[in-house]
Amino acid sequence: MSSPVPAASSFSSPLAVDLERIKADIHALAAIGHNDADRGIYRMAFTDADMEGKRWLLHRIEENDLVPASDGAANISGILPGKVENPRVFVGSHIDTVPCAGMLDGTLGVVIGLECLRTLRAAGVELERPIELIAFSDEEGRFGGMFGSEAFTGALTPEKLLSAKDLNAVLLSDAMLEQGLDPKRALDARRPPTDIGAYLELHIEQGPVLDQSLQQVGIVEQITGLRSWSLKLTGEANHAGTTPMDYRKDALMGLADFAHEIPRILDENGGEHSRATIGKAEVQPGAPNSVPGTVVFSLDFRDPSSETLEALSQAFQKALAAISRRRGLQFEVNVQGDIKPVPCLPELADLLEAEAQRLDLRYRRMLSGAAHDAQMVGRVAPMAMVFVPSRGGMSHSPAEWTAWGDIEAGANLMLGALHRLATQETLPTSTS
Amino acid sequence: MSSPVPAASSFSSPLAVDLERIKADIHALAAIGHNDADRGIYRMAFTDADMEGKRWLLHRIEENDLVPASDGAANISGILPGKVENPRVFVGSHIDTVPCAGMLDGTLGVVIGLECLRTLRAAGVELERPIELIAFSDEEGRFGGMFGSEAFTGALTPEKLLSAKDLNAVLLSDAMLEQGLDPKRALDARRPPTDIGAYLELHIEQGPVLDQSLQQVGIVEQITGLRSWSLKLTGEANHAGTTPMDYRKDALMGLADFAHEIPRILDENGGEHSRATIGKAEVQPGAPNSVPGTVVFSLDFRDPSSETLEALSQAFQKALAAISRRRGLQFEVNVQGDIKPVPCLPELADLLEAEAQRLDLRYRRMLSGAAHDAQMVGRVAPMAMVFVPSRGGMSHSPAEWTAWGDIEAGANLMLGALHRLATQETLPTSTS
Repeated sequence: MSSPVPAASSFSSPLAVDLERIKADIHALAAIGHNDADRGIYRMAFTDADMEGKRWLLHRIEENDLVPASDGAANISGILPGKVENPRVFVGSHIDTVPCAGMLDGTLGVVIGLECLRTLRAAGVELERPIELIAFSDEEGRFGGMFGSEAFTGALTPEKLLSAKDLNAVLLSDAMLEQGLDPKRALDARRPPTDIGAYLELHIEQGPVLDQSLQQVGIVEQITGLRSWSLKLTGEANHAGTTPMDYRKDALMGLADFAHEIPRILDENGGEHSRATIGKAEVQPGAPNSVPGTVVFSLDFRDPSSETLEALSQAFQKALAAISRRRGLQFEVNVQGDIKPVPCLPELADLLEAEAQRLDLRYRRMLSGAAHDAQMVGRVAPMAMVFVPSRGGMSHSPAEWTAWGDIEAGANLMLGALHRLATQETLPTSTS
Repeated sequence: MSSPVPAASSFSSPLAVDLERIKADIHALAAIGHNDADRGIYRMAFTDADMEGKRWLLHRIEENDLVPASDGAANISGILPGKVENPRVFVGSHIDTVPCAGMLDGTLGVVIGLECLRTLRAAGVELERPIELIAFSDEEGRFGGMFGSEAFTGALTPEKLLSAKDLNAVLLSDAMLEQGLDPKRALDARRPPTDIGAYLELHIEQGPVLDQSLQQVGIVEQITGLRSWSLKLTGEANHAGTTPMDYRKDALMGLADFAHEIPRILDENGGEHSRATIGKAEVQPGAPNSVPGTVVFSLDFRDPSSETLEALSQAFQKALAAISRRRGLQFEVNVQGDIKPVPCLPELADLLEAEAQRLDLRYRRMLSGAAHDAQMVGRVAPMAMVFVPSRGGMSHSPAEWTAWGDIEAGANLMLGALHRLATQETLPTSTS
């Protein structure tokens, strides 16, 4: 290793977060965009509520004597300075939400980052390098997702900037202009990868693994890759009463066949982290007395290995071809998305694990099955993630929750890791 | 037999229809409600186009010196009188259409009935009993279907009359008032069953059987029974990336399981005429990255035997229960419709077959997999049906077609059968 991780005993942060301040910030943000009718939070990117959240965050950053900043993508930063300007240690997530969201999701990572910075500032810790809290814009995907972290890492293109639209066909650029933002400036939000010494993100798991295994935190080793397809099977719409069973070219039966191949294909080609989901299906003509002529459906499949994703792709296409041949159907595959798997930097994951051991937390190493801003940043710089349990695996819903004790545990883990990264002589780098 | 059918050689109608007049009438009706954009015909019940079609038909009836009539359900009749008033021989179908219809469907049976009556009138044939052509209102189901034949047979209830609505929530009674019709009078449209000596209906098959087996006509022995269910499977909506495969309660996988049980259930409990179709399915929440929490889908199943329909019902429910147990889902069954199978009177079917043999037609005996006005009439009076081939099995579409030669063959078969029924001493009655 070029920068060996000290043993757990060789470093010990005497500091601890104040859970009451975290609670207060979570509740303050939860009031912005809150809807009484369904108890959900609505802070979709670049809405008035989202902008109000951003202003609230900037204000809190100033109140806590951190250096406030925002970039052309409307990412909001709060900086605790160090001896050098760059590279920096980043801690981030996002405060935009899906419609009818719960109060945690990205917000928790931002609020905990803020708490870590004010704890370090209040303790008068001298930093070798700055720690920058960053709240990225539109992680949730009103305009496609990861807009802020794409801009931050230089992955945003002028084409995407000008063409991105929401589901109501509102252009991203118009939504930004409406909020007094100059969309062209988003391209200036890029930071040179060499300035990003490390990026840490704490997030709720959004799955049941930690909750069911009674762990307090998860140390993420890898963020899964995701391929998203739209599939179409076309047969022949016919009268349900007059068409004998063996004359039919029933597209829905083709979908049923395909759904049943999923477990076999995962068993044969996938691993323990493989997932495949048909989440959406539209049947045409869609009348009870018509044999379905067409079914358009989604296939979302994920795995931490690019090779496995490729093997799954080939197996899914073979199955579609075989089913179509057998049932006299035609099939079409439209690739909607292809997000590569991104590994966390092993040295950063080891550092997080060492902190979890120091704090005597119940933890496990795991995979992120969901996409995060960390996935964008991890493509260009050292990155690691911490998960806290989602009660019942729930997220993107007002029922989303994490026990306060687990939030405190995760926050102290993040505090220790940031303290260490910002004060030790060198930053961990890849050994590969 | 109480009224033996004479051998084919003992009766021979010297008459024949004029195909050119049939063509002219089909094209004249096709122009009413025709839409240039999609080449479809729009004569949904009690629309202006439907009422224009009814007026056109009454006018044609008068022009051909038949006795015009209409009843409180806006059924249109044309009568060729006989020596007695009742019982009568009826020939009927409907001229209302589905949206974007073809030009045949019910129209063909009405136009052929008209041609038969004018041919008999022009030949000066003396009838023992009247033949009444009748075009029933709303067969296609803008307000549920079979409205005119329900009223005709006395199956219409005041409750249904007052509560029936179309998909846009327009009340049947309002639609009738709008056309200057008094809805209450619909209950007066009932004819005493003893006045209905026989009911014959010619219809396009709406399936591929005659077309693929190169027959000219089909002699219908029975109209299939139909049960229509709306089914709901409820599991748990979850994140497609973070929810391990074995934690899922995926409602769509339950639907796939159920779809795959259909062939087994038909094989084990059904017969050669059994059909079952899932024509409609709605997935919730319906996002590519969400495991489906709920699927609502239709099940339409048909068989000519009530016992078989009952056996199928029980097998479908058992399968649903087993699948739900296995996958941790809950299920709900909502019965949307239950139409009993209705046999044609065997003596009438034999008479139609004898005519087919006399005319040297290629024919087969078969089942109707679709519902027809004949199904309503057959519950109270002797009934039989003739099918002509649907090219490619297509119907309810501008592509619906039947070769003119087959139309002529079917019309001559109907002419011979009506001639015989209206002139022979007694009418066939059930021997059972």
